[in-house]
Amino acid sequence: MAIVRVSRAGVCNTDLELLKGYMRFRGVLGHEFSGTVEDGPPEWRGRRVVGEINFACGRCPTCQQGLRRHCPTRRVMGILDADGAFAERVAVPVANLHTVPDTVDDDAAVFAEPLAAAFEILEQVHVQPATQCVVLGDGKLGLLAAQVLFQAGADVLAVGKHADNLRILGARGVATVLATEWKQAPADLVVEATGTAGAFAAAIAATRPRGTLVLKSTVADATQLNLAPVVINEISVVGSRCGSFAPALRALQSGAVDVHSLIAAREPLRNAADALRLASRPGVLKVLLDPQQ
Amino acid sequence: MAIVRVSRAGVCNTDLELLKGYMRFRGVLGHEFSGTVEDGPPEWRGRRVVGEINFACGRCPTCQQGLRRHCPTRRVMGILDADGAFAERVAVPVANLHTVPDTVDDDAAVFAEPLAAAFEILEQVHVQPATQCVVLGDGKLGLLAAQVLFQAGADVLAVGKHADNLRILGARGVATVLATEWKQAPADLVVEATGTAGAFAAAIAATRPRGTLVLKSTVADATQLNLAPVVINEISVVGSRCGSFAPALRALQSGAVDVHSLIAAREPLRNAADALRLASRPGVLKVLLDPQQ
Repeated sequence: MAIVRVSRAGVCNTDLELLKGYMRFRGVLGHEFSGTVEDGPPEWRGRRVVGEINFACGRCPTCQQGLRRHCPTRRVMGILDADGAFAERVAVPVANLHTVPDTVDDDAAVFAEPLAAAFEILEQVHVQPATQCVVLGDGKLGLLAAQVLFQAGADVLAVGKHADNLRILGARGVATVLATEWKQAPADLVVEATGTAGAFAAAIAATRPRGTLVLKSTVADATQLNLAPVVINEISVVGSRCGSFAPALRALQSGAVDVHSLIAAREPLRNAADALRLASRPGVLKVLLDPQQ
Repeated sequence: MAIVRVSRAGVCNTDLELLKGYMRFRGVLGHEFSGTVEDGPPEWRGRRVVGEINFACGRCPTCQQGLRRHCPTRRVMGILDADGAFAERVAVPVANLHTVPDTVDDDAAVFAEPLAAAFEILEQVHVQPATQCVVLGDGKLGLLAAQVLFQAGADVLAVGKHADNLRILGARGVATVLATEWKQAPADLVVEATGTAGAFAAAIAATRPRGTLVLKSTVADATQLNLAPVVINEISVVGSRCGSFAPALRALQSGAVDVHSLIAAREPLRNAADALRLASRPGVLKVLLDPQQ
């Protein structure tokens, strides 16, 4: 274990779902952070780091297959049986640490975790230059996913409800449209990143026959669903969660993905309750907490 | 169009769903048949045939991409805007016809359609010899899917409720277990072929993290579902419908798949109502109709 002094922590929609009862988590929230190692192995002390959030056993068959993020006995920082980073210090297994490149500042480094989750799409689905992608949702994860798919060379259309948020993508060359003005044409790949359980039917309708729908929203609620369109149109529905940090850190270092424009606010930790309220407002992007301020 | 004199027609679970209101179909049921071409192009007359059920336009972008079974303006025999094969004669586009090999009898040839649907799994998912497969459901489609996966070299376990049905697989060397005695261990690939909407949660639970769940049941009802396990375990849920007839006819010719053991009854068409009632009883396998008897 390393003890990391937290420089910044990010509020994720999952935190808001956890507050509603998702995973029945009790403990310190927060699974997106950047910080400096204060205690741990000598070679790590003083390093600026980010950390993967799934604490795996490393020994079971799942871990041995390289699926540590799916270790059946894992603890998950700020989500399952492990305290998170909305704190001055957080404990992280050394195996989960990644050094932050010098040119990536503390604000940007917080995005390693959600950006890794966006890159996870490329790990699960073969996205080709000819792949027509529609990203549903212009929240934090939607904006990261749209940029990652665009950088991978795909034909991306981001559909959202907030012109200000879509403008961030427009500035990077990504095509965008307001949901109210969208002339829906079924796409090869649809990424559902609206964060709402009710969006499934619309997402299925936006996916072409034999196409792929990536589900990025973790929501606590069950909902009424008809799977017949999935079968009739032979759609692949791919659940997608955490990803590898390496491509995310490379993209942060190169500037291939704009994350600074996604920062809505930076609050001291003592204002965490207000910060969470702010983060839960529709259209508000990344709220950062600074525990050292 | 060719006019086919129907020798045999098969009752499928989809027919029973259609009777309950699925697709709001009005017309002659029946999409599994074997027969002889009575009228049509000279080169087809007198040939023993089976027919693919999706009547495509052949000209739209979807058809041009080779996805004729997903043509957006398709009619579907006995399911959507086209009369089916529970009749003395049925009209089928010539493009949909396949010649039945001499060594495949009329009873077996009826299985070309559902067997093609089982082979569709191999078209959609890369099934490898090391792939651990669980087939849920020992109805008609479950027994065909289990045999197809087994013949492809995979490690197959069929889970069912009817010892008599599972014995058909056992005789071919496929491992089977009664659902009540099954010690569930998450599998790489799960095929949901129980024909019930409520089986989704159990099927997800039977799929390993990053594994694939193939949905084969078309059911009319919406149901209460929680997609969080799909996201958390990053499962791919693959809807699967109709398949190519070519591999099915090859398997019928070689005898690689046993279909004769699946025949529960052979009834004249005038007894169709009784035959449908029989087919709807749990555990009853393929009921054939003979319109010429």
